[in-house]
This record gives sequence, C-alpha cells and structure tokens, in this order.
Amino acid sequence: MISSKLPKMFYGGDYNPEQWDQATHQEDLRLFKLAGIDMATINVFSWAKNQPDENTYHFEWLDELIDSLYENGVFVCLATSTAAHPAWMATRYPDILRVDADGRKRKFGGRHNSCPNSPTYRKYSERIADKLAERYRQHPAVLVWHVSNEYGGDCYCDHCEQAFRVWLQNKYGSIEELNRVWNTAFWGHTFYNWDEIVLPSNLSEHWGDNKSSFQGISLDYARFNSDSMLECYLLEHNVIKKHIPDAVVTTNLMGFFKQLDYFKWARHMDIVSWDSYPGLNTPYSYTAMAHDLMRGLKDGQPFMLMEQTPSQQNWQPYNSLKRPGVMRLWSYQSVARGADTIMFFQLRRSAGACEKFHGAVIEHAGHEHTRVFREVAQLGKELQQLGDKTLDSLVEARVAILFDWDNWWAVEKSSGPTVALKYVDQVHKYYAALFNRNIQVDMIGTDADFAKYDLVIAPVMYMVKPGVAERLERFVQGGGTFLTTFFSGIVNENDLVTLGGYPGELRKLLGIWVEEIDALLPEQKNRIVVTKEYGSLKGEYECGMLCDLLHSEGAEVLAEYGEDFYQGMPALTRNRFGQGSAWYVATDPDQPFLDSLLRQICEEKGIRPLLEAPAGIEASMRTKNGKQYLFVMNHNAEAQTYDFGDRSARDLLSGTEITGSVTMNGRDVQILELA
Amino acid sequence: MISSKLPKMFYGGDYNPEQWDQATHQEDLRLFKLAGIDMATINVFSWAKNQPDENTYHFEWLDELIDSLYENGVFVCLATSTAAHPAWMATRYPDILRVDADGRKRKFGGRHNSCPNSPTYRKYSERIADKLAERYRQHPAVLVWHVSNEYGGDCYCDHCEQAFRVWLQNKYGSIEELNRVWNTAFWGHTFYNWDEIVLPSNLSEHWGDNKSSFQGISLDYARFNSDSMLECYLLEHNVIKKHIPDAVVTTNLMGFFKQLDYFKWARHMDIVSWDSYPGLNTPYSYTAMAHDLMRGLKDGQPFMLMEQTPSQQNWQPYNSLKRPGVMRLWSYQSVARGADTIMFFQLRRSAGACEKFHGAVIEHAGHEHTRVFREVAQLGKELQQLGDKTLDSLVEARVAILFDWDNWWAVEKSSGPTVALKYVDQVHKYYAALFNRNIQVDMIGTDADFAKYDLVIAPVMYMVKPGVAERLERFVQGGGTFLTTFFSGIVNENDLVTLGGYPGELRKLLGIWVEEIDALLPEQKNRIVVTKEYGSLKGEYECGMLCDLLHSEGAEVLAEYGEDFYQGMPALTRNRFGQGSAWYVATDPDQPFLDSLLRQICEEKGIRPLLEAPAGIEASMRTKNGKQYLFVMNHNAEAQTYDFGDRSARDLLSGTEITGSVTMNGRDVQILELA
Amino acid sequence: MISSKLPKMFYGGDYNPEQWDQATHQEDLRLFKLAGIDMATINVFSWAKNQPDENTYHFEWLDELIDSLYENGVFVCLATSTAAHPAWMATRYPDILRVDADGRKRKFGGRHNSCPNSPTYRKYSERIADKLAERYRQHPAVLVWHVSNEYGGDCYCDHCEQAFRVWLQNKYGSIEELNRVWNTAFWGHTFYNWDEIVLPSNLSEHWGDNKSSFQGISLDYARFNSDSMLECYLLEHNVIKKHIPDAVVTTNLMGFFKQLDYFKWARHMDIVSWDSYPGLNTPYSYTAMAHDLMRGLKDGQPFMLMEQTPSQQNWQPYNSLKRPGVMRLWSYQSVARGADTIMFFQLRRSAGACEKFHGAVIEHAGHEHTRVFREVAQLGKELQQLGDKTLDSLVEARVAILFDWDNWWAVEKSSGPTVALKYVDQVHKYYAALFNRNIQVDMIGTDADFAKYDLVIAPVMYMVKPGVAERLERFVQGGGTFLTTFFSGIVNENDLVTLGGYPGELRKLLGIWVEEIDALLPEQKNRIVVTKEYGSLKGEYECGMLCDLLHSEGAEVLAEYGEDFYQGMPALTRNRFGQGSAWYVATDPDQPFLDSLLRQICEEKGIRPLLEAPAGIEASMRTKNGKQYLFVMNHNAEAQTYDFGDRSARDLLSGTEITGSVTMNGRDVQILELA
Repeated sequence: MISSKLPKMFYGGDYNPEQWDQATHQEDLRLFKLAGIDMATINVFSWAKNQPDENTYHFEWLDELIDSLYENGVFVCLATSTAAHPAWMATRYPDILRVDADGRKRKFGGRHNSCPNSPTYRKYSERIADKLAERYRQHPAVLVWHVSNEYGGDCYCDHCEQAFRVWLQNKYGSIEELNRVWNTAFWGHTFYNWDEIVLPSNLSEHWGDNKSSFQGISLDYARFNSDSMLECYLLEHNVIKKHIPDAVVTTNLMGFFKQLDYFKWARHMDIVSWDSYPGLNTPYSYTAMAHDLMRGLKDGQPFMLMEQTPSQQNWQPYNSLKRPGVMRLWSYQSVARGADTIMFFQLRRSAGACEKFHGAVIEHAGHEHTRVFREVAQLGKELQQLGDKTLDSLVEARVAILFDWDNWWAVEKSSGPTVALKYVDQVHKYYAALFNRNIQVDMIGTDADFAKYDLVIAPVMYMVKPGVAERLERFVQGGGTFLTTFFSGIVNENDLVTLGGYPGELRKLLGIWVEEIDALLPEQKNRIVVTKEYGSLKGEYECGMLCDLLHSEGAEVLAEYGEDFYQGMPALTRNRFGQGSAWYVATDPDQPFLDSLLRQICEEKGIRPLLEAPAGIEASMRTKNGKQYLFVMNHNAEAQTYDFGDRSARDLLSGTEITGSVTMNGRDVQILELA
Repeated sequence: MISSKLPKMFYGGDYNPEQWDQATHQEDLRLFKLAGIDMATINVFSWAKNQPDENTYHFEWLDELIDSLYENGVFVCLATSTAAHPAWMATRYPDILRVDADGRKRKFGGRHNSCPNSPTYRKYSERIADKLAERYRQHPAVLVWHVSNEYGGDCYCDHCEQAFRVWLQNKYGSIEELNRVWNTAFWGHTFYNWDEIVLPSNLSEHWGDNKSSFQGISLDYARFNSDSMLECYLLEHNVIKKHIPDAVVTTNLMGFFKQLDYFKWARHMDIVSWDSYPGLNTPYSYTAMAHDLMRGLKDGQPFMLMEQTPSQQNWQPYNSLKRPGVMRLWSYQSVARGADTIMFFQLRRSAGACEKFHGAVIEHAGHEHTRVFREVAQLGKELQQLGDKTLDSLVEARVAILFDWDNWWAVEKSSGPTVALKYVDQVHKYYAALFNRNIQVDMIGTDADFAKYDLVIAPVMYMVKPGVAERLERFVQGGGTFLTTFFSGIVNENDLVTLGGYPGELRKLLGIWVEEIDALLPEQKNRIVVTKEYGSLKGEYECGMLCDLLHSEGAEVLAEYGEDFYQGMPALTRNRFGQGSAWYVATDPDQPFLDSLLRQICEEKGIRPLLEAPAGIEASMRTKNGKQYLFVMNHNAEAQTYDFGDRSARDLLSGTEITGSVTMNGRDVQILELA
Repeated sequence: MISSKLPKMFYGGDYNPEQWDQATHQEDLRLFKLAGIDMATINVFSWAKNQPDENTYHFEWLDELIDSLYENGVFVCLATSTAAHPAWMATRYPDILRVDADGRKRKFGGRHNSCPNSPTYRKYSERIADKLAERYRQHPAVLVWHVSNEYGGDCYCDHCEQAFRVWLQNKYGSIEELNRVWNTAFWGHTFYNWDEIVLPSNLSEHWGDNKSSFQGISLDYARFNSDSMLECYLLEHNVIKKHIPDAVVTTNLMGFFKQLDYFKWARHMDIVSWDSYPGLNTPYSYTAMAHDLMRGLKDGQPFMLMEQTPSQQNWQPYNSLKRPGVMRLWSYQSVARGADTIMFFQLRRSAGACEKFHGAVIEHAGHEHTRVFREVAQLGKELQQLGDKTLDSLVEARVAILFDWDNWWAVEKSSGPTVALKYVDQVHKYYAALFNRNIQVDMIGTDADFAKYDLVIAPVMYMVKPGVAERLERFVQGGGTFLTTFFSGIVNENDLVTLGGYPGELRKLLGIWVEEIDALLPEQKNRIVVTKEYGSLKGEYECGMLCDLLHSEGAEVLAEYGEDFYQGMPALTRNRFGQGSAWYVATDPDQPFLDSLLRQICEEKGIRPLLEAPAGIEASMRTKNGKQYLFVMNHNAEAQTYDFGDRSARDLLSGTEITGSVTMNGRDVQILELA
C-alpha cells in the first residue's frame, strides 16, 4: 500500500531555489511553515546545473537543499532533472535534438526537447538518474521520485526512424504481415524491405489537421512514439529501483493528453500523479472526468495532484485569476475523486523567462500578505485538521466508461466521414449526463474487468480490439447493460474494417446492421422522435454530425429519425442479450436526450445518485474501512440549498453536524463523514 | 471516330482486386453482372506489385485478372500504374521524390508523389508503359489506356530547376529577351546568366496565398510545371502508340483543376476523361459548367466520366450521402453534357487506408442488398435499355464562354487590386445566367473558332494573348456579339501591361477607356443604375468588388454607377463595331443583373432556351444523325411541372410519350427523343 | 540647419527610368514640369544594373540620368541601390541570402533579401556606396543620399548566429552575467560557453504568434537584429561622409515599424524620412501619430515624406482609390506635423512585376489627362505658391507621449497574461483622446528631456529602463503631471521582474501597489465607477482586457471597479508627488473615459486645444521666427463649419482672410498664418 510510503496528505509544489539566492530560500522556508507546506518537488530543470559537462556532476547544492528542506519539515519529491537537456549537450551531441513533423531539426531551446531515441539522451538521462538514486537512496526526506516532467511531443529524426523499423519488426515479424495489416496494396505502398519504411509525417503520409493517408502506419507510429518515451521513463525508473527497490516512482501525467497511452504507462508507475490545468472555460465536469481517468489508470488507486496553479496560468490566451475560493474548491474536487496529495506549480514565481506570469504560492511581491497566499495557507491549515481520515480511501462506482487511446488516435486520423467528430467530446457528453446527477463513474481501459460494473458505456467505440467483443458479450449475457454509439465496431486494432456489415464484431450483441453513415454539415440537424417512451425520454430531440442508417436485426427500436430520406429509421435501439441488454445510440444527440436516457437506464439498474442536489452541486464519495466520506462541492458562486433528508452526517471541514435542508455558501465544500 | 473503339456506353469503375483474395474477386464478378457493369479500370496503383525491383516485372496476376474480367463480360480500361511510385524506388532513387514549395524534400508516402523531371521516374514510368503495351497490345479486353492517374501537384527540386532553365532558353532564346518579358529591371532582378534563375517558390518570389513578386516568372513556372507533367504523360502515351498505333489513350482530368492547362493536354489525348466530385454545396450549374469545359477541351467530342462516387466521398470535411436518385440524376447530367461512359470510383470499397470511407458499388457489407447497390444496378439496367442511341451524339451551342488557364493563373497571382477576385467564380456567374435559362453553352479556349458562335463571353479577360484581340474584332465585325468585363485587356501573355490606357488591345473594340479601377471592401457596395432600359434590365442593381472608372470613346452607355465619387460614370456599355456589338460590364454585378442582361442579349440574337421550365429543371441537348435528344433533369427534391406546349416526344427512359403539361418526380430524368 | 541643404519644399518621388526607354524618359520630363515636380529618388533598385559582376561597374546611365534631370530642374535624391542584391551575387555568394525563422535558406527573389551580417553584402554594399559618393560628390543635382530602402526583416543564418554571440559578449562581458540577466536557471538553460547560444527562432525558443519561451533572449535578438541592419546602414553612411562630409544622408523609415528601433537609428540620420501608407481603414489620428513619431525621432526636426501613393496601393487585400482631395489632404497633414518634402511612390507606374498595380503620378495611360495627375499637378502648383513660408518651422507641444521600441518588443513577446494586449493600440487610444481635441503632442523616447513638457503619458510602461523612474520622479516633483497605466513598472530592461510588488520602480511615484492582474476574455467586461467627479469624468464607463487589483499606498482614488470580486477596488488613482501628480489607469477603459480624463487633466494644466472644431477637423501648428501657421484640415467628406471667434488670419492656400464662423469644404485644407 502506497500510504506506507506517503503516510499523510502532503501539500506543496514545484520549487526552484536554483533561480534564487540563499536569503530568498530562507524566507521561503519561513513562508512554507506559514502555509503548511510539507512537500517540495525539486530538481525538475537542473540538469545543466547538475552536469556541466560529460564527466562532471555537482550535487552539493542538492545535498544542502534537501537537508535544509528536511530540517524545516518539508519532504522532497525528487525529480531526475531530465526534462530539458543542457545547452552544451545539444551543441556537442546534436542527436539529442528533435526533428519535427515538417522535417526541421530543432536547435537548443524550450523544453520537451530531447529525442526519445537519441543515444545521447538515453545514456545521460539514465546515468544521472543512477547517480541521484545512489546518492539519495537513504535520505529520509525523499519520499517520491519524479522522473523527468510532463513527457510529450514527438520526433521524426533518423534515430527514431530506425527504431520504428525495429519496433515494427518486433511487432509483425514479417514484412508480409506488415503489408497485410497496413493494407499497403492500396495506392501501391507495398514494402519489400524494412528499410523502405519511413516515419509518417508531413513529408510523407500526413496532411491537414492530423489526417493521414495510411491510418495503419500512423497508428503504429503513435504507439511507437508513446512506447519510445515510456522506454525513456523505464530506463530511469529501473535504475532508481536498482538502488531503491521500494522507491515510489512516478512521472507527472496530463489528463486527456493525446500523445501517450497512459494505461500502458501506469503499469510502470508506483503511483499516478498528474497536472491539472483547467482552461478558462473548461466545464468542471470535464475536470472531474480527468480526475476519474487518472484514478482509473491504476484501477482505482489514489493519485497525486502533482500540479495546479494557485491562481493564474500564463500560457492560455487569456489568463484569468482563480476567483476567491476556487482554488480550495478545485483542490477538494481532486481529493473527492482520488487525490491524496495537493501540490502547486509553483511555490515561488520566477523573476524571468516563460513562466514569470504563472501564478505561485509566493508571488513577485514576495510576502505572505496576498490573497493567493492567504487562500493557500487556509487550505494548508484545513488539510492538517483533516489529517489522514480520507487517505487511501477508494471510490466505488457501478458505472464505467470505456476510454481507449488507440481508439482516440484512430477515430481522429480517419479521413472521413466528418472532421467534426472528437472522441473526448463524445465521451464527455455521456460522462456529463451521469456527473450532473452525481452518479459515480469509473473511467476504464479496454482490458478492465467489466463484470465489476452494472453499466458499461463505450461512446464511439470505432476500434474493437481482439477479445473485447467477446468479453462484452459475456458481460451482457451475465446481466450487464452495455451502451455504445454511432461509428462503433468499424475496425480492428489495425484500423482494418471488419467486413460484412457495421458494427462488425458488435453486430450480434447489438442486434443491428448499419448500412450507411450520413455526415451532416455543422448547420444541418435531424430530429430523434421517441416512439417508445422510456422514463423521461419522450417526445423529440435534436441530433446531428453523423447519422447511422440502420436496420434492426432483433433489437427493439425506441426512437427513430424525424427527417430526411431516412426518416423512420431507428435512432435508438436496445437488444436483449442473455440476461442483459445492449443499447445503441445511432447519432449525436443533444444533451437532454442523453440525460433522460441515462437517468432511466440507471433507474432500471438501481443505480442511485450520491446526492440529489441543485445544478452545480457536485458529489463524490470515497470509502475506507467501511466509512464513507461524501464530498459535496458547490460550484456556484452563490449559496445553494440541498435536501439531505433524514440522513445526518458530520462535516469534517466545518465540524458541524448536518441534516435536513442544508445550505452551502458559494464555492464551499463539505466532507461528510457518513454514519 | 472514337466510337469504333468504344462501341457502347460503358458502365463500370476503378477496381482494385490486388487488395483482395480470389474468392472476393469471384463474388465481385457475380455482383458486376447484377449491376450491369462492363468496364473496369484496373492497375492504377500496382506499380509496386508489378515491379518489385529495378529489373523484375510481374504481370501474371494482371494476365489472369484481365482474362477473368473479359470472360465475364467486363472490358478493361488499363492504367499504367505510374500514379504512385514503389517504396523501394524512393529509397534507392531519391530523385523521384518531390521537393515542395517550402523547399522540403518529401519522403515516400501518399500519391502524386513523383517529381515530373526525375530521371528515375521518367525512365521507369516509360518502361513499364512500354512493357504493358507490348504485353496487352492484342488483348481484346483492353479498350482504353489510362496513363497514370489525376496528374497534379508541383515540384521545386534541382532537377526541376535545371529543366526550367532549359524550358526558358527554348522559349526565349536570349537572356535579354527573358529580362524584357519578365521586366526584371524592376527591383533589380536582371539576370546575366541562365543559372541565376531559381524556381519561384515560398523561398524566392512567392508569399501569402499564392501571390508572387514576379508574376512573369511565376506564370512561366506554372506553364513549365504543366508542360513537365504533360511530357511525362507523353512519354507513356508515345510508347503505347508505338505498340498500338490506334490505342485509345487518355488520362483522367479533374474539371476546373488549376495546375494543368487542359487545353494543351487534350491535344494529346484520344478521348477526354474526367473525375467529377461535386462538393457538398457545389451548385449543379457548376458541375454542368465543368462537364461543358471537359467537352470543350477537344472541341465538343464526347468524353468519359471516368470517376464519380456512388454515394459518399471521404476527403470532404463533411461527407454526406448522395440522396436517393441523386447518383442517377448526376450521371445523366454528365451524359446530357457529353459523357459517353459512366464510371465510378470505386467498384469495391477498400478495407483499410485513406479511402476506406469513400463510397463504392460494393460496400463493406459486401453484398447487393444495399441502397447504393440497388441504385447502381437500376442505372445499369437503364443504360442497357438506352443502348447506343445517344452514343457519339454532339452538343450544339450558339453561345461560347472563353476560358483560359494562363489568364486564370495571371489574374490570381496579381498583387492588387483585390484579393477577392476569383476567375472561375466570375466565369460561373455568367455561365449560371445562361444555364438557369437552359441556354446551351460551349466552354472554349482562346484559339477556338469564334465564328461558330453568335455570342462570345469572356469574363475577366485580364490577359489578351497575341492575335486574340484581332480575331475578336473580326468576329464582331462580322456580326458577332462579344461581352467582356472589368479587369480585362490589362496585360499581354507575359503579364506586361498594355500601355496607353485600359482595356489595352480591346479598347478599340469596346469603345471605352478605363481610367481607374476602384477596389471595394467586402462589406462595401455600389449600385448600377440602368439609364437605358434593355429588355428586363431596368431599375437598379447591386455591384461591388471592383469598379472600373471608365469613359466612353464611342460606346453607348446603358447603365451608370449610383454612388461614390464616380456616380454617373458608365457601368455598362455597348459598342457597335462593324456588324456586331461589344459589351462591357464595368464591375461585379449581382446575379439578377446578369440574368436580365444575358436574357436580352440572347433574345436579340434569337438564341432560345432549350426548354422553359421552373427553377431547378435543367435541360441539355445532344444531337446525332439529325436526331435530337433533349435531356430534362429535375434537380429539385420535389415534383415539378413544365409546359412542353404542343410539342411531343418520347421519353427514352420511361418509354412514355409526353406533350403539354409534363410533371416530373423529384430528381427524375427524361431523355426526350424529339421528332 | 538642414534647410541650407534642402532650401525649398521639394516635390517628387521614386523614379525608375531603367525600366523604360529614352523616349519615355523625355516624356516624363515634360510631365514632371506640368506637375511641378523638382525631385526624383533614383537608383533604388539598380544594383544589378550598376554592377554586373564582382569587378565591373556601370554608372554611365546614371551620369546621363542625373544630368538630364538636373537640366530639367529636377534635383536628385540618390539611392545607393543596395536594397536588393543582384541575382549573380546570390548565385555565387549564397551567404548573402537570408535564413528565415523556420531555418529555411532563402533563394534569390523579392527584396529585403540580404543577410545583414553577410560578409558579401557588407563588402559590396559599402563598396558601391563608396563609388557612388566618389562619383557624384560634386554633382549639384544630388541633394539627398538615400541609403538602401525600407530596411527590415530578419535573418537566422550562421553568420548572424556568430555575430549575435559577439554582440552578446560585447554587451555582457561574461557568460555568468548573461545567465543572470536571461534567468537561464529557469528550465535549465544555463550556458557554459558562448558557442552554446543559438538564435531564438521557431526552431528554438519561439512559438505561436511571436511568443518566446525566453523573453530575455528574444529581446536581445530583436536589438541585435535592429543593430545589425543599422551597422549596414552605417557602413554606407560613413563611406558617403568620407567623400562628402556635409552630405544629407537618410534612409526611408516606415512609421510604427516594429523591427527597428528608430530612435537609435535616427541618431545617425541627417534627416528623418519616411514612407506613409495608411491602410484602407487606418484612422487619420493614427497617421497623425505616426507623423508625430517620425518628427520625434530627431527631437522635433522636420522630416521628409519620402513616399506616399498618389492614389492606389497594391499590397493591401483591397486597394481602394484615394478619393478626390484625399491625396492633397493627407499631404498637408504630413506638412502640418513636420514634413518639409512631399514625395510619391512612384512617378511612373511599372508595366510589369509586383507593383504594376501600385498607383503613380504617371499612370499606365501615360499622359496627363487623368484625375490622379491633375490632383498631383494642382498640389505642385500650390506648393510653389506656398514657397518656403513653413520650411523649417517647428511644432511645439506641452504634452508628450513616451514611446519605446524595447517596451513594444517586451510587451508582445510576453507569455501571459493576455494575447489581446497590443502596445501601439494602447498608445493610440491616449493619443486619440488628445488628437480629437486638437491638442498637440510630441512622441518621445525614454531618454528625452521630460522637463520640456507639462504632461507626460506613458501607456503600458511595462519595461522601466535604468534611470527612467528617477527622472520621472524628478519631473513630477518639479510640478509635472505623469500618467501611466496597467501593466506598467513590471520589468527592467532585461525583462526581469522588479520584485517586491508591482509597479516596481514606479510604485513610490504612483503611490499604489498592484497585487494581482486579472485577464478578461474578449467578451468579458467590467465597469469603472467614478467615485470622485473630475471635470466631465463622472458616472460609469466600460473597461476590459486587463484589470489591475491594486491598493492605494497614498494615492487618491477617483474611480473603482463596478463588478466582480474586486468591485470597489481602485481603477483610477492620482498621487500627489512633490509639486506634481502621477496618475494610474488600472485597466483598459473605453475611449469616452480617456477623452474625459485627458480633457480635464489638460484643462488643469492650462493646455488648450489649437482649435475647437467639429469632429473630423484636425488642427496642427508649425512655428517659425515667431510666426504661427495653423493647419486646419477637414477629414469629413462634407463641408463643416468651425468658429474662429474674433481671431483673424490669412489662409495661405486660398489667400482669403478668415474670422468668425468659417466654413470649409469637405477634405479641404487651410494654412492660417496667425498674426
């Protein structure tokens, strides 16, 4: 259990004292105490400082820093400093520099700048992780190892091209098999030799906004690129484990980050950690979904909120302040959904360069008399009072939404039928329908155990990987409810169409045949007419984007199209299959349709909301040792009242007992310990 | 006469059995029969399959395929497979890869990927055409030779640069002459040596959206690039003719495709063929105009509709289905305007890669029980019933619209006076005014014989090539009516301004002097006030974009501007010249202005509509051996009624006799054999 | 005094007879006389003609041209012809070609095409200037030397990279100091060696629309690039001065041109000259501000209007004609604000290439019977009548607006808080508030003498250079009024934040502390509520974009925010400081707010409008030998009446005496000689 290593809810953030003098560091320590800060992520961008040339390493400053923090009650999340390579390394070993999708060799600058298949990068990043692990293996301050930082980006250099060919050889064995799965007979792309394969880029197969002439090639490149970075992570991870077998090793993920298949990554992380930066207009249901996904990566285990801004970001077009109370509200939202740590980027704001306008606990003013600092310190105090009550508690859900990176890539690389289809947006529509009713959801991968759930939803399950259809059939056969949508069951894991009629491998389960798929213009709409009332699902709804023209092959039709030449064809079907049933939503409906549909499906399955409350009040529950902690969060700026009925509970934050009609202030939070 | 070679109205499309197994091919043959398909375009993208290395060729599969098709009543349009080069060729001979306008060397991928001046490409493409022609010269199945596929794109590599210099030397003889016609004294661009000339690209003279600092250079590059591809075509064409002197050789064109001067190309094609892919919102008048242009390329000879989609495309942003009846309607539209063949891309839909979401006769479902297949089969049956009635028939028009690729290039490379001017859009406005009245139009090049027509329209005749002004003068002198517009008569074939006053060489003919040209903002408008009523042309109209400020030098003024400081200056003039008259439309008017103007000009010339019918009913006539076939097409989704008066005719499709008030179903078609 | 060298108000423009034959040149001379043209800028783009190879120079044509002009009463502004290098030079010495921000080596083409650090360019450009100066040092026709043309652009080649490192070494001395000022400890960018530094480009630190990961690096590159071009200018300048110590040397500037720090450049120019090309919708207050800036570059000295178009431009998206009277009106506007010369681009319109659609005195028609020519000739006649009355007169202002290129660069390279902040737009809002009331303004640099003014305005003074805060404090202490805005006082000259609280070095002077800066979405607004009426400043106003959350530290609060969580916090403050006061506008207000605020500040300081007149009537005054010349310009298309009260004056243009109620025609101009 990870909590033996992280025995409290730590509070802190990224800290870069190498940008400052000693006096400032001493002042920081004073302020950390005021704010209740007890963990600092350090050494994230210090590679150049640590290693001024090939053979010299300087860690004395780090020794002093770690000691100084530890003596002041601040534990350390120790980064390996490989997130940006030193300038001298780029000058002397240009293989470390990336080549972009336009074939342009990068020069030194920025971050995310190392080629993941660079021999130089791999050699020196592994070596410095080795040295750090050896040096600090026994230091009591170091609780977490933070490999590199926010892995991402891609590279199209010759080293990557060579590595891609090897990766393909390992995967496919023969060039004939590769030609088959990529369908290279199309456009005469047959390869006779591995060396003929080039990376798919804007110079070869890619064009426009992320479109590819050969989805099979591009899909494999996306996997290869994710794997290449994962190998870099593993080189460091493994060398740390060599010195410290029970080290807690992580790297900070980024929620719905398209380039890396986090399900694959999470297998090699002792704890998931992630950086949450909602944009100015991000719905809070979207942030909640990202937390749920991060929790889902390791099958429900709690995670670290590694970064969030105390108030302002700097890289949005318009960087608004977090309103009073919002930082606290969003911090608790992360805890409510699985976070056991709350960390900021950053503890002190830089005086120069890119992020000097990014918020920090200690602002440019340099003292504690700021709104931001006061809010941070207040939360620090609360967390100390809360103690370890919720630590290690879990979230339990009867509904799962299936999320799959391969599918994400494949859906959006497709040329046709519409550029409007965005996978995550579709997933979010179904998530929101549940979230808005405070129904707990797990975000799961394709190889999760479906049997744990009563309802599994797979929006736009375009790609069906081997065995998944069978496992879904077993799940439904055994009484489960499955729901999927238009543009599902189309291809296999290589983006080859399952022939014989859509939705391919899901056809039997769903009891339908999709003959055609119409793509609508943005301004074009159709209507869904409910022909068989289902709970509150009745009357008419709007739909658009894609409309499947389908025939029932045994499924019950609950709604049909209201317009166009396919007026009267099914728009919503349910297929009884064994003990369970399988739903198909044939088009992209408006949100009220989904709200009503999912409300009724949940009712039927006896899945109840955690809390019936006015709009904008979010509830999430964590459970531990038989105790339930219900987090209630008012996202409204104004006070709201909800009815707790004859239940009663103690609010761990205010210390008050609540029951009956409960009024919460705007942006306030309750953690209700249920009897 | 081409019909001796193509003795029926063939029906078929692109077919790629190399992507499938034998069983599938056998099933295809069964389905072809069901659909009435009797021609298949094969071998389009099989270069890699045909030639796995420098010296090995495998055509056995092709032998079998052609035999198998032939035995099943399917003739062959044999492609030369040079539309995409093999991967091994790109790896071993990088000269075959293009360099783009940003100077980026491409890697293997996509199609349209061979440099037209690559020695490797020229050598191997000629050689494989040679081998194919030798091998299949006597095969009775092979009716048409299809060189490469959809030529297009451009290249900026060193081979092209060298070839450009040679092309220029051949054209201009001396560097002094080149300096003169390019006006290189401007900006000190004088060249002293041919080797100093570089290709105009984004690295040299080009910027923004297709603009050039030196239009003369860019214009010659556009010609050179078109010629380079034509040379590639000719290499294959000639080697086929060496083996089969009477071969029918073509390559599939693409309508209003900017990069290639199709008038020049068509001289070397035995029959024009083209691929018609109306976009989602393409007006059907635009499609009609494209058909007319394709027919005009070889002076009215019938053409092949080489490709159209049975229903869906995949490369539009939003790929809607063709509504029921639309495929049939548009197929007949092509026949009505000159097609003697109806072909699809594609006969069977690919299972993987770029075009797997492009429609096909045989969809992924794989059987005949689909709406698409049924519509294809229905049309196949109709075509068999229709037989060769209309085969080889011609379209006769008394109105011609002059279209010129050089002018297109020059107009849109110009820096000033407005970015809003799009040549084809202007041409379409005049075309639509005639089309909407069912007045037959020929689209002709600058060297066509004007005397065949009563009315010649040359919208935005910016460039006047040598001799054209004189020929137009003779035409009008002899009684013809000529109409041109603002921004005409400005430059010669080298984009050098004809000095002394616009419209330069057309000034005498038009009897006007254009002193200034005002460019209006998109939201700015002026008005045309008709001062001399002309048929239904009266009152006021809106105009914009460009407004010529002109003085009559003898021309009669029929309308003037209603606003701005040039209020009262002429906006529409007619100059009596010899027996005829020459019109000038001084600005970009709204469509009602053009409708009324052209209606009256036609009335005066005695040019009558083929059919007076409600909006959306299109008529076009083909004539053969004194028989007239009037195609009537209802583009409306709803039924419409037109008055056929006391004429009577037999509808070849329904077999019924029609007269008087005739009601057509939505999207229905009639082919009326006139007595 | 420059007027000893330029003893009259010259009238002319760019002239390129090398594009024409002798007969045309003779015709030009006739037309110049008709138009009153007495100065021609020649040899701008003749490098290739002058120097056909490394060692050959041909100036005979220039000898003849200069003589011919001189004999016909036309003086010469002699360009050095280095604005575009010859093609042969690019072929033989590729170092002369630039590399763009994407790392792409340019090929020969366009203009602005020479790398400013190219050894070849520096060698040959200096040498040809040397030869020209030696040859024409005593020619009486040559009055002005025009070095190159419209310097601009940037280069990222290896020569520039090497030169940048040397420039940095000279500036910073040690790599440690460079690391400090660039704050390279951020993101581990520490440099150990000068050779590790690369140019900031799209391949290193830049991304998006002009954003940088390291503002310090990018800021120094912007300075370096401006200095590199200035060095090129100086090479030519110095070699001219070697031959002709009292030569009048200039180069044509371009108003608010971001890339070059014109304050630095102007020190090395004997007279400022500039090219004024208002875009289609440019407010005339913006043009006025540009003239004032150009006058301010050399501390108020009169300047040359080196280029303007007689009517049309060609490089705007939509190139409208100048309406009748507008060319005259705008010409006098330039004179009213400091121009002592009126020149056009161009005297004769080119027949081919990029600028053939750019207006000219002699149009393609080639004769004098055009509207454009008539307007030019009318103005020529007027200028002759006006004589040297206003020559060398000065503009006197009591209000200064501080403008700083370094600040411009720094503000807009910043990542955060908003992409909406555009420095020049902010400056223009304050300028317009004064301009609209006909209050004369000087545009000054940061090292100007503030004591000359009663009111100094520094909008968005983000960067405070060394000593400037102290000098502003002394200015206010002595009774001056200072006004600055949100996002001021943030950083020092290296873009390092002044720690301890915004507005940093200006905090004492302004008596405030800015705790936070909120960025608003484009559609978001706040309100300013005036709490202490100030003249006509009362009630409420709209504001947006950025809102400072500030605390008064002694400053008087005159207005506060009306909304959001910072409702009630100060939005406008005034701090009494010594004898003067310092204003702070905490957000981006609507124009009525600024109009009222500046009206009242001016009233308090006794700064009166030059003329109270209806909207659209601009007034500016030049003064000479105690005489005042009040230029009154009616920008309205319609006649307007203003009240001249009991004052009386003679209008030098109409010759009439005016007093009382004065009516001006639309677009008319008066030059009132005040008693």
